Amino acid sequence: MKNTFGNAITVTLFGESHGEYIGAVIDGIAPGVEIDRAHIAASLLARRPSGIISTARVEADEYKIISGVKGDFTTGTPLTVLIPNTNKKSSDYDTLRDTPRPGHADYTAECKYHGFQDARGGGHFSGRITAALVLAGAILEAALMKKGIRIGTHISYLHGIRDRAFSDVSEDIASLKRLTFPALSAEAADLMKRAIEDAAKQGDSVGGILESVITGVPRGVGEPWFDTVESVMSHALFSIPGIKGVEFGAGFALADMYGSEANDPFVFNGGEVETKTNNSGGVLGGITNGMPLVFRCAVKPTPSIYKEQMSVSLERGENKPLIIEGRHDPAIIHRARAVVDAVAALVIADMLTARFGTDFLAN
Amino acid sequence: MKNTFGNAITVTLFGESHGEYIGAVIDGIAPGVEIDRAHIAASLLARRPSGIISTARVEADEYKIISGVKGDFTTGTPLTVLIPNTNKKSSDYDTLRDTPRPGHADYTAECKYHGFQDARGGGHFSGRITAALVLAGAILEAALMKKGIRIGTHISYLHGIRDRAFSDVSEDIASLKRLTFPALSAEAADLMKRAIEDAAKQGDSVGGILESVITGVPRGVGEPWFDTVESVMSHALFSIPGIKGVEFGAGFALADMYGSEANDPFVFNGGEVETKTNNSGGVLGGITNGMPLVFRCAVKPTPSIYKEQMSVSLERGENKPLIIEGRHDPAIIHRARAVVDAVAALVIADMLTARFGTDFLAN
Amino acid sequence: MKNTFGNAITVTLFGESHGEYIGAVIDGIAPGVEIDRAHIAASLLARRPSGIISTARVEADEYKIISGVKGDFTTGTPLTVLIPNTNKKSSDYDTLRDTPRPGHADYTAECKYHGFQDARGGGHFSGRITAALVLAGAILEAALMKKGIRIGTHISYLHGIRDRAFSDVSEDIASLKRLTFPALSAEAADLMKRAIEDAAKQGDSVGGILESVITGVPRGVGEPWFDTVESVMSHALFSIPGIKGVEFGAGFALADMYGSEANDPFVFNGGEVETKTNNSGGVLGGITNGMPLVFRCAVKPTPSIYKEQMSVSLERGENKPLIIEGRHDPAIIHRARAVVDAVAALVIADMLTARFGTDFLAN
Amino acid sequence: MKNTFGNAITVTLFGESHGEYIGAVIDGIAPGVEIDRAHIAASLLARRPSGIISTARVEADEYKIISGVKGDFTTGTPLTVLIPNTNKKSSDYDTLRDTPRPGHADYTAECKYHGFQDARGGGHFSGRITAALVLAGAILEAALMKKGIRIGTHISYLHGIRDRAFSDVSEDIASLKRLTFPALSAEAADLMKRAIEDAAKQGDSVGGILESVITGVPRGVGEPWFDTVESVMSHALFSIPGIKGVEFGAGFALADMYGSEANDPFVFNGGEVETKTNNSGGVLGGITNGMPLVFRCAVKPTPSIYKEQMSVSLERGENKPLIIEGRHDPAIIHRARAVVDAVAALVIADMLTARFGTDFLAN
Repeated sequence: MKNTFGNAITVTLFGESHGEYIGAVIDGIAPGVEIDRAHIAASLLARRPSGIISTARVEADEYKIISGVKGDFTTGTPLTVLIPNTNKKSSDYDTLRDTPRPGHADYTAECKYHGFQDARGGGHFSGRITAALVLAGAILEAALMKKGIRIGTHISYLHGIRDRAFSDVSEDIASLKRLTFPALSAEAADLMKRAIEDAAKQGDSVGGILESVITGVPRGVGEPWFDTVESVMSHALFSIPGIKGVEFGAGFALADMYGSEANDPFVFNGGEVETKTNNSGGVLGGITNGMPLVFRCAVKPTPSIYKEQMSVSLERGENKPLIIEGRHDPAIIHRARAVVDAVAALVIADMLTARFGTDFLAN
Repeated sequence: MKNTFGNAITVTLFGESHGEYIGAVIDGIAPGVEIDRAHIAASLLARRPSGIISTARVEADEYKIISGVKGDFTTGTPLTVLIPNTNKKSSDYDTLRDTPRPGHADYTAECKYHGFQDARGGGHFSGRITAALVLAGAILEAALMKKGIRIGTHISYLHGIRDRAFSDVSEDIASLKRLTFPALSAEAADLMKRAIEDAAKQGDSVGGILESVITGVPRGVGEPWFDTVESVMSHALFSIPGIKGVEFGAGFALADMYGSEANDPFVFNGGEVETKTNNSGGVLGGITNGMPLVFRCAVKPTPSIYKEQMSVSLERGENKPLIIEGRHDPAIIHRARAVVDAVAALVIADMLTARFGTDFLAN
Repeated sequence: MKNTFGNAITVTLFGESHGEYIGAVIDGIAPGVEIDRAHIAASLLARRPSGIISTARVEADEYKIISGVKGDFTTGTPLTVLIPNTNKKSSDYDTLRDTPRPGHADYTAECKYHGFQDARGGGHFSGRITAALVLAGAILEAALMKKGIRIGTHISYLHGIRDRAFSDVSEDIASLKRLTFPALSAEAADLMKRAIEDAAKQGDSVGGILESVITGVPRGVGEPWFDTVESVMSHALFSIPGIKGVEFGAGFALADMYGSEANDPFVFNGGEVETKTNNSGGVLGGITNGMPLVFRCAVKPTPSIYKEQMSVSLERGENKPLIIEGRHDPAIIHRARAVVDAVAALVIADMLTARFGTDFLAN
Repeated sequence: MKNTFGNAITVTLFGESHGEYIGAVIDGIAPGVEIDRAHIAASLLARRPSGIISTARVEADEYKIISGVKGDFTTGTPLTVLIPNTNKKSSDYDTLRDTPRPGHADYTAECKYHGFQDARGGGHFSGRITAALVLAGAILEAALMKKGIRIGTHISYLHGIRDRAFSDVSEDIASLKRLTFPALSAEAADLMKRAIEDAAKQGDSVGGILESVITGVPRGVGEPWFDTVESVMSHALFSIPGIKGVEFGAGFALADMYGSEANDPFVFNGGEVETKTNNSGGVLGGITNGMPLVFRCAVKPTPSIYKEQMSVSLERGENKPLIIEGRHDPAIIHRARAVVDAVAALVIADMLTARFGTDFLAN
């Protein structure tokens, strides 16, 4: 479905980095869902660059809702958001038309769109578009929170530095939502920021691993074979630019485990079935088991760096060194977590609406 | 879409481990695609248990095509395959109704289907169903091969043992297709088999990592934002039981790289744009760049082990130890590679048919 | 979606007239729906030819359910039905390969499938396939009946003869289900049968109009703009071979009405809002209003007739007269009503499951 | 899919009558399609009210394209159009909240959206939204015209007055596109206008029948069983407010024909297979046969009339007469033809893109 994701609830993305607006249409959201503007603002802020470790191009992320809301509540018809692009400087990108940036979509967009793509600022493939995704996700996440569902993401790993694991998940999620730089351990946060600054000084960039947790999802959700929780969630997560790996529960570490270590024993806890460990990440056979959903995303280093790189001149058909100018982030992982939270909210809201009916999210 | 996957070409799976048949419907396949029965047989054989490291329950994997084929060619209407279940012993599973097996879908199926699920042999969630998926994939893979597209998968890692990397990809794929135990290095294969046997002796099991490569996919395929190559491929891969992680290109290792290391430099090679390295796994911005598609899947250890495990009696509401009887594989990863190849064939056939039209696969 | 219809509940059709089996996969049906074999048998019987006014080729319509049912209840996983083709005589069709029958899909199948289609007996486009559709629909209709929803169809018009209108709808539906020839007035039924016999004597055929009513559908169902009740229902109805027109409520007769005649006045009746008339056919703005759903289908005359017709030899590229041999129905409208009921059941079950959640149909 | 229609090309509609904008997102359109602003303007004009027979509320139908176009060509990424609502007078609708208008969606929207719907001006169910649909359709229709495909619609019947039949289809389509009031016969047009004026004088309204023809669609397009040309086209057509019937070819008149009259004989004409008559409307077995596609839509009389009507007070639970104030059209059928053309363009563009690949519409 190209730029539309979801079944019972869909989100359609549109816009280019240097167009008048970017935006999204949410369809299938229940009537009567309250629009939580504080939560939207906080989510957009979490995605927004700030400080030395992010690009100096700061966008106000003003937005308007042009359909689907009356007063503070959804009407149940398509909810459309627009975010104006206020700060666009096309000249930075002029030399890149012929010489694709390594690690970017420049070359593949050329292959797919035959030169008709809007290449300014990455066009439709700009990370800028994630602002619309975050906005859509924040509307849904606020509705999920009223149903007792909480989503949180931290940087679990960045260039050799490891954050502490989740412990009190509710509290950890709450504090992550307040943090600009989402690491649970203040010490790890400092080390990670220093690693980003070090990369920046060298004109380079870093990536890392984001770990997410979702609590409060009912048991029995997921539609095997093909719409398992992992299938649908990874589908959405891999739409986020820069994400190149997704794992659930123990993930790739399962390759070093015995079955007797990997299997999560069942136990009764307060009358409810739980598992002692959570190597499955809350999903067995593609269906939720009531434990927290846990997954991790590998985020590649930002491809825009200041070091000279090898590229080609497409027109001349020859190799050509490239130096990227303009302002670029040495890391986007701390901002990407807002996109992961948004995408996770979309997936969960969609699956629960399909499971429990179209009015599920209504207040 | 639950048990249907794909857009231009869809595969619908049905059946239970202990029913009369399992099967699949392929819809949208071009008319005039030749049915390659030798390739189907080889693919089913690759999925089939054999030798000491797999369960002794051997199914002949006879199949019949009951619609959509006339002579040796597809008609273009739905192609339905049936595989009879010939060797089913329900008694092994009788005690498991009340006591879910850790790591299995028993408990979550109970949550979702409220006791109406067919629990015998895992029912619809049995790995048995993958035979139908392999059969469907093999039909499509043979058609892709005629278009110059090749798919191969090896066990790149198993419990501390690492296979050699792909070198001459075409040759490596060809030899993997001939191997029962798909490791590129004979030495690694021996060590891996020994690790599996060791686990088996302890009544335990192991998982591992499968690495796949696909060559010959045209540039410019993929539908961002939401139907990127990674999104669609991971969606399908996470439908395979036991897969808990998927990464493309350098994947999670990107978290330790600088941008200057991760970015793949562009170079002209024989008049064509290529990249010097392939950390992106052949996908940039969600769109193919002409390099081999490379991805890895984390496979969890087989959950059926002989060691006593903790579980619960759902009826009595109390904890209860469980010993699983019957015959079970200490590893399925060498068989799972056939399922990965099949799923990859489905995804590529689907994306290319959408891209180039409904007759694309026709001979 | 080609051979798959529906969103929350899908039905996938497969098979050819002269293959081993035709069949269908129902996916998304709730677990715990009781299989009503008497209702299935009655529905298949209503579709089955009998007596002088139908073809002498009688198929037993034996069927088997090979997945998705345990005991008498659905498991919630894909439910697959197979109907064996027991009575197939391919020789009747041999001369038709080169000379397409007017009014049939022979020529367009050739255009689409380039000669690879299975032309025997109409192949995948045979009316025979509707047996699988009726079987799938009957399973869903029985589940809807437990929710108080009733579906019935009569021949409202046939070659100048008009049946009486619905009066006591519940009673009328009940008696239609018992009738082989579904006209509400015995006198009209006699006249219609005579008209069919007269056509048969001339080697000719007739069509007619089917009128359907559905009661008990809750208010507020339908998903404008694009999934209005009329949109989804007509989509499904126009899949039935031979249906060339669909209208809701007063339909085409609205072209002769003033707004003051066409608008249905609202009135309170026993505390519930109703409309005095039902020119809208129970749907306003694409959404149900609680009144009976009423729609009509135009059924074209059976295209297989015994009179000489003009056709072409595709190979020789010249005009060529055609005389169709074998046994053919002079009318199928009385059988088509079973297909209409089935299709209507599928649409309503799908829309209600989407609206109220995946367990809606469970007992 | 609620407010999204299509498979290979999708259109997503959003907006309310009294919001800031209405609009649409077209996704999947090929890169390099030229935007034909003259054709867009002509199409919007054809939908726009004018003169005594339409509402005095005239909207300028200014629009902007905010994404997916660079210069005069599509980029291949989502194309979003916005149409500002400049002339909105909410007070007209204030008394209607409690008292639903007969024939409108007021009551069913209340049932579905539980009071959260935006009721001003019909909200999301206003005919106003069709402006966005016409705009989207016009972009696609212009692209189809470059491929030799022509779409035209006339009022074939209105309250006892019949327009002449299509004769020279190409010329007829061309002249229809130039006409404000789309009847082929000037005399019929005069009579129809007079009938509308007569209805207006009585404070009443009329409907009618629209007949459409599409030429130039290749043979072999359509995806039985469930995505026949009739299925997909009717699905889209029934999304247009006020359409209550759709028929193809001879449609409901087939109920009076013998098979020997209804069957279209095949003949060779200039080396191509054609049919002598076109009772099938260009579709056999759900697949195009190369003849013009012909279909008719029944349009109900505009429900907003000035005569007193019976309705209810939802709050008080009692019957209550209603007099609708404000300005309303006595007929919308002459405007609806622009919506039918747009919807037809969307369906054909979508089906051909699926059939021939994603670049099909490119110049």
